[in-house]
Amino acid sequence: MIAECEGIGKIMKVGVVYKYDSLGLARKVSAFLEERGIEVEQFHLPSSELEKYDFIVSVGGDGTILQILQDIETCPPIFGINRGRIGILTHAEPENFKERLEKVLDGKVKTEKFMRLDCFVNDERIHTALNEIAILTSEPARLIGMKIFVNEVEIEDMRADGMLFSTPIGSTAYALSTGGPIVDPYLPSILITPIAPFKLGWKPWIVNRKSRIRIELHPERKALAVADGQKTKEVFPGDKIEVVESKYPAIFFESPVNRIGRIADRLKKIS
Amino acid sequence: MIAECEGIGKIMKVGVVYKYDSLGLARKVSAFLEERGIEVEQFHLPSSELEKYDFIVSVGGDGTILQILQDIETCPPIFGINRGRIGILTHAEPENFKERLEKVLDGKVKTEKFMRLDCFVNDERIHTALNEIAILTSEPARLIGMKIFVNEVEIEDMRADGMLFSTPIGSTAYALSTGGPIVDPYLPSILITPIAPFKLGWKPWIVNRKSRIRIELHPERKALAVADGQKTKEVFPGDKIEVVESKYPAIFFESPVNRIGRIADRLKKIS
Amino acid sequence: MIAECEGIGKIMKVGVVYKYDSLGLARKVSAFLEERGIEVEQFHLPSSELEKYDFIVSVGGDGTILQILQDIETCPPIFGINRGRIGILTHAEPENFKERLEKVLDGKVKTEKFMRLDCFVNDERIHTALNEIAILTSEPARLIGMKIFVNEVEIEDMRADGMLFSTPIGSTAYALSTGGPIVDPYLPSILITPIAPFKLGWKPWIVNRKSRIRIELHPERKALAVADGQKTKEVFPGDKIEVVESKYPAIFFESPVNRIGRIADRLKKIS
Amino acid sequence: MIAECEGIGKIMKVGVVYKYDSLGLARKVSAFLEERGIEVEQFHLPSSELEKYDFIVSVGGDGTILQILQDIETCPPIFGINRGRIGILTHAEPENFKERLEKVLDGKVKTEKFMRLDCFVNDERIHTALNEIAILTSEPARLIGMKIFVNEVEIEDMRADGMLFSTPIGSTAYALSTGGPIVDPYLPSILITPIAPFKLGWKPWIVNRKSRIRIELHPERKALAVADGQKTKEVFPGDKIEVVESKYPAIFFESPVNRIGRIADRLKKIS
Repeated sequence: MIAECEGIGKIMKVGVVYKYDSLGLARKVSAFLEERGIEVEQFHLPSSELEKYDFIVSVGGDGTILQILQDIETCPPIFGINRGRIGILTHAEPENFKERLEKVLDGKVKTEKFMRLDCFVNDERIHTALNEIAILTSEPARLIGMKIFVNEVEIEDMRADGMLFSTPIGSTAYALSTGGPIVDPYLPSILITPIAPFKLGWKPWIVNRKSRIRIELHPERKALAVADGQKTKEVFPGDKIEVVESKYPAIFFESPVNRIGRIADRLKKIS
Repeated sequence: MIAECEGIGKIMKVGVVYKYDSLGLARKVSAFLEERGIEVEQFHLPSSELEKYDFIVSVGGDGTILQILQDIETCPPIFGINRGRIGILTHAEPENFKERLEKVLDGKVKTEKFMRLDCFVNDERIHTALNEIAILTSEPARLIGMKIFVNEVEIEDMRADGMLFSTPIGSTAYALSTGGPIVDPYLPSILITPIAPFKLGWKPWIVNRKSRIRIELHPERKALAVADGQKTKEVFPGDKIEVVESKYPAIFFESPVNRIGRIADRLKKIS
Repeated sequence: MIAECEGIGKIMKVGVVYKYDSLGLARKVSAFLEERGIEVEQFHLPSSELEKYDFIVSVGGDGTILQILQDIETCPPIFGINRGRIGILTHAEPENFKERLEKVLDGKVKTEKFMRLDCFVNDERIHTALNEIAILTSEPARLIGMKIFVNEVEIEDMRADGMLFSTPIGSTAYALSTGGPIVDPYLPSILITPIAPFKLGWKPWIVNRKSRIRIELHPERKALAVADGQKTKEVFPGDKIEVVESKYPAIFFESPVNRIGRIADRLKKIS
Repeated sequence: MIAECEGIGKIMKVGVVYKYDSLGLARKVSAFLEERGIEVEQFHLPSSELEKYDFIVSVGGDGTILQILQDIETCPPIFGINRGRIGILTHAEPENFKERLEKVLDGKVKTEKFMRLDCFVNDERIHTALNEIAILTSEPARLIGMKIFVNEVEIEDMRADGMLFSTPIGSTAYALSTGGPIVDPYLPSILITPIAPFKLGWKPWIVNRKSRIRIELHPERKALAVADGQKTKEVFPGDKIEVVESKYPAIFFESPVNRIGRIADRLKKIS
């Protein structure tokens, strides 16, 4: 993530995206905004149309935000109302969203940029992810082999169930299940951790955000490239597979609580 | 594994099973045996017919032996000639199989029983495995949740990519990729290790061979039960899934080298 | 641990050992026993005299029981009243000790044997431990190097802060801090785990109880051999250091609750 | 580390520091420099005098460089000739030092700044370290308890053998023995990893270089603060113990090989 924070201009048009079970709450949010003279449109499914709005309200969990981001390149600021279990990306609870949203409308809440990762296959961008790009075996209980290069220097050659390339935000997502560290959301970097490596001598790696990471599959077997657990594409031996920082960061309103404290709290919940 | 060793009676009939690329070597083995007056049959594919032979020669890697065992309940002693990379279950190399096999024919090589695991679903046996029963997610990048009970005492409740129930022999197979220990092949026991657990506070467990292990899937999602990476069946929330010691152990001829030393050597190769 | 359970004969003489802050409770225990015609002696400090009693009541925590065992070879059954934080070895709480102790006096509570480990240096026994024998660096932040042999087969050669050799009971003591598994208390075995190994490719090992383990220090530096965190002796390069099952097991009354369930509960507390 | 590189001005005076067994080589280095009209002084022991030289040649291993840095605040560029086992900080081998040093004298080799860490106790700086500040138990086999705060947000509260606060360079030093990742030397950050934590639910953390880290010892027991395994001071419950980026970075000549590739090579050697 980048520590650049800035405010937001005059708000005219807001997109409200809701999870299937949250229509009631989404209506309340829309009414609240319309009372303040704002044009609101409701979305049940994410859409690239959302790029055109002044900001986005997500009514759901972290998963809803991940889905929204799948369809967006240039990102309007996102305000998340938490209906999920943990909500590390959200800004308010159903009980207190009015108060927080009021501040946003008053221009009192800054926005923050969070690094995303692109996955390129043969020079074509196939995925953009906020949490992680996962290269996974396509057949349960069958290993895939791969080499990992950082700026064309080979750092790893192993067989495993898969390999994760995570942002700092993603260090508490899928990467939490592996041997990797928790990464400060304000330390722009890429975390590389294997899933079930069939090898004894290995370590997670954490590299500079500007690193160009290339994955070379062993010749035996195709794999899956998965973005944020949302979208999946097949990749094949011989493909040039690359993971790099995206030029399209995610933009969120500033968190009302300290982000590191929030992560520490979350960790206690999943202990 | 059980430290019971015994010899083998008069040998009349031997089954030779070969991996697709090892027909030439299999023919040499058959000729060698037939010269000594033994009836030999060659098998390209494993078969339950093999139960009726006095012993089995496997020409291939550890995977070939795992495949053979998938079709066998009452196990004749197995003699493995290694054509694979590591060969922790095999008894000879292509260069020296005659000398070793001669000793077997002379009744000078004892046999050893190795514990296998059964997987029962709703009281029906669906799998028998030498290395491990794996309960895995059926969708890459989607967690499955489960509770684990040992003799009806809950020891774990977690979401993960999967969970392994391994024999001591299996501690150097799939379980090697997880946080578990190497288990002495002469310590009859069941090793329980998660794959990519989405939880911070957990530990591998190793329990007594007589333990009755029960898995209860969380209601959201089906899973796969995989035996030795060879056979896969779907299992569903609500199913009574159990893993217990099989009454059909695997039987091998005694290893020509110390088994623990062999494992220590193998670990160096995959470092 | 061994699954041999047996009752206890007629009780005449009981030793009550108490932690410094538990004299009041110890007096109540003594009074309770004396009312039932039993001869009681109170001990503030552990003593080999305790070997002569029909059974021992420990008023304190798990640490009190570990201290008592340091001075005892042939072990009378131990009954622990928990005054500590967790109490995995104890049998009653201050609130309910009378009821449980009554059952013991009535001969209704079986006893269980738990494996201990001996540490021999140059063929002389220097330690006996219920949890673990630790071979540790004597200088903070300075590695010690060592080779580990199991029945004279080398399984490991590494530099580390130390190495633990634990019983199943000890798998929830110091070994919990390392990468090892939780071991079923009814699986007699020895768990070997390094502390902060300066090496990438390694694994914990768990071996058969009958294994003879030998440690060979690298020539540079002496180390400490510590039993249960209670007693410490120096060991030197060139010393023949061995860890084997002790012929003096610990004997406890049967736990009122399932031991595996109790461990699973304990793990939740230290998550 | 900071990606700032710059050249060096006209060289007049060089300090040559040698490990006890490297006097012969040090003399050759001095003769080589003197032939080129440079004033040379030889040091057997590190000294703060070295701050005044135009650059420093270290003849020894990585440990020699760590020792030199212990006595230096404002750091002249260091050129290391490797006499140790691995040499991740050095620039030449005894066989090729002339050729590389020639380039340095010609002003063709840039210098790089590497982040160091300061340890403050009650607002007084007690240590500066290139690899790590370690807070360790002062008594083997006795846990110390501590809370960790990052910018006054509590991220951890645990009992352990110790806790490491490492630079990226230090991620391949003591931190390699713990569960932490390898950190790109060009990712300025602080890595926090426990040694043998007596707790199940924990993770390594990696935080922004600008973080102010505070350690609060539990009241029971003093601890040791150790810098790079070189210098040790006692710290006490109630002390305000802080770890922050030092304003005195270490300065090295640019590595002749890619630093990440060098680390990957090193990892293979210690597998």
